[in-house]
Amino acid sequence: MNADLDESGALAELRNALSAGDARSVRRAIREGRWNRVTHGLAKGFVQANLVVVPQKYAFDFLRFCILNPQPCPIVEVLDAGDPVTRISAQGADIRTDLPLYRIYRDGALAEEVRDLRAHWRDDHVGFLLGCSLSFDQAMVDAGIPIPYVERSGGRLAVYTSALQCAPSGPFHGPMVVTMRPIPRRLLIRTIEVTRRYPIAHGAPVHVGNPEDIGIQDLTKVDWGNPSIVLDDEVPVFWACGITPQSVAMAARIPEMFTHAAGHMFMTDLPLARTAAA
Amino acid sequence: MNADLDESGALAELRNALSAGDARSVRRAIREGRWNRVTHGLAKGFVQANLVVVPQKYAFDFLRFCILNPQPCPIVEVLDAGDPVTRISAQGADIRTDLPLYRIYRDGALAEEVRDLRAHWRDDHVGFLLGCSLSFDQAMVDAGIPIPYVERSGGRLAVYTSALQCAPSGPFHGPMVVTMRPIPRRLLIRTIEVTRRYPIAHGAPVHVGNPEDIGIQDLTKVDWGNPSIVLDDEVPVFWACGITPQSVAMAARIPEMFTHAAGHMFMTDLPLARTAAA
Repeated sequence: MNADLDESGALAELRNALSAGDARSVRRAIREGRWNRVTHGLAKGFVQANLVVVPQKYAFDFLRFCILNPQPCPIVEVLDAGDPVTRISAQGADIRTDLPLYRIYRDGALAEEVRDLRAHWRDDHVGFLLGCSLSFDQAMVDAGIPIPYVERSGGRLAVYTSALQCAPSGPFHGPMVVTMRPIPRRLLIRTIEVTRRYPIAHGAPVHVGNPEDIGIQDLTKVDWGNPSIVLDDEVPVFWACGITPQSVAMAARIPEMFTHAAGHMFMTDLPLARTAAA
Repeated sequence: MNADLDESGALAELRNALSAGDARSVRRAIREGRWNRVTHGLAKGFVQANLVVVPQKYAFDFLRFCILNPQPCPIVEVLDAGDPVTRISAQGADIRTDLPLYRIYRDGALAEEVRDLRAHWRDDHVGFLLGCSLSFDQAMVDAGIPIPYVERSGGRLAVYTSALQCAPSGPFHGPMVVTMRPIPRRLLIRTIEVTRRYPIAHGAPVHVGNPEDIGIQDLTKVDWGNPSIVLDDEVPVFWACGITPQSVAMAARIPEMFTHAAGHMFMTDLPLARTAAA
């Protein structure tokens, strides 16, 4: 939100247009270099997705990791080996060009940030699109649950490495990364009812109430994002976070991995409402 | 059912015990060589699963095929490469010894039937347990929907290769195999309501009414199983069938594949009722 203050009139106008528009328009603006910022708030109502690209050698173990850990790793689409074009979540999008910013990791360490993956793409690269909690906050708002914590922590959620262990798969293993949202006690049940309906946005919480139960000793010490104050009438509620699969792949030190840069997501054509469970 | 007529008293007694028992007891009886027949009707209420084993080289594409085609290929458990021991669907079962009969396919053709896979197992073998429609018939009975068609066709359902095409993944592509059940018109809606709740047993039908719409010209010409008469007050209803992934893997002529032999399923510890969707 603070970035808005610095926006030129033309940029603010584009943001407004892309917020009200569909995901296809956002992808086009990104591909044409007209939009290179975070995607938060764009194409409202459409599912946004995390991107992870790994060499095919690791693709089975990574896909199995996602299936074993559906809360942190909800599968939106798995692309064919070597094929950067989506078929299910968006018609004919190219994951090498249609995100605003990418990160390239080598042997588990950040090597560089790039705006285009085409020069790095190989026939043995496999792309995974995984659900993200931006969709989640939209579902909360749609259900009439206010999300003041987003503003309160400066637009960035509090994110922690928990002591909850993911089910391992091949070289991929490690703790679950979680987001924390302070929820008023009177809205707790409703919040669980609403979020469980959106597995693509990490589903129901993984823990409610006592951070120490899941290995978080101090809520002010975040691993990513900004800490959020928990008011007296609120309870800290923890959800699985889409950083988990990236974190686990980094820890496995696989030789090469591409991801979106934080906040710079892939915009799908999937209406969030249509992904809801009964 | 006809096989029962030939059963000795001891075998009939064992069948009765295993029908009323849990899945663990059935797996033990199979592993110890005391039971080597089909698993239909054993450990009632527990999910039974299809087995497919492929070399790790094909595991990613095959797993992606299952994800792309969840109705014919509902995933029960995907084992770690080289590891024949289940962890999710059954505690510590061995897929090389705990099924009554296996088939070994080479280059897409049946090579042999064996009672034990241990001599054939390698470190790069990956086991997939996929949902099967034996669970399905149990769900129907539990919901008070009679299944006279099972008796009517001699205990074997009518199975057809349809014209519905699966979503392809790597070398795996081809038509969906379907089962047909004749359902009385007055029970059609209830049947759809019940079966959609069990994705692990193939979920809702893929077609209702006109066989020609899905490329089946003559219901008397089955590709597997026995044909079933459709009475005047009945409508033919088609569900995705767990033969699909095997059929597709055979058509892809992968160098090696192990499967269960028809009807000789893997017994999981999962109560079918607990897999039901809302």
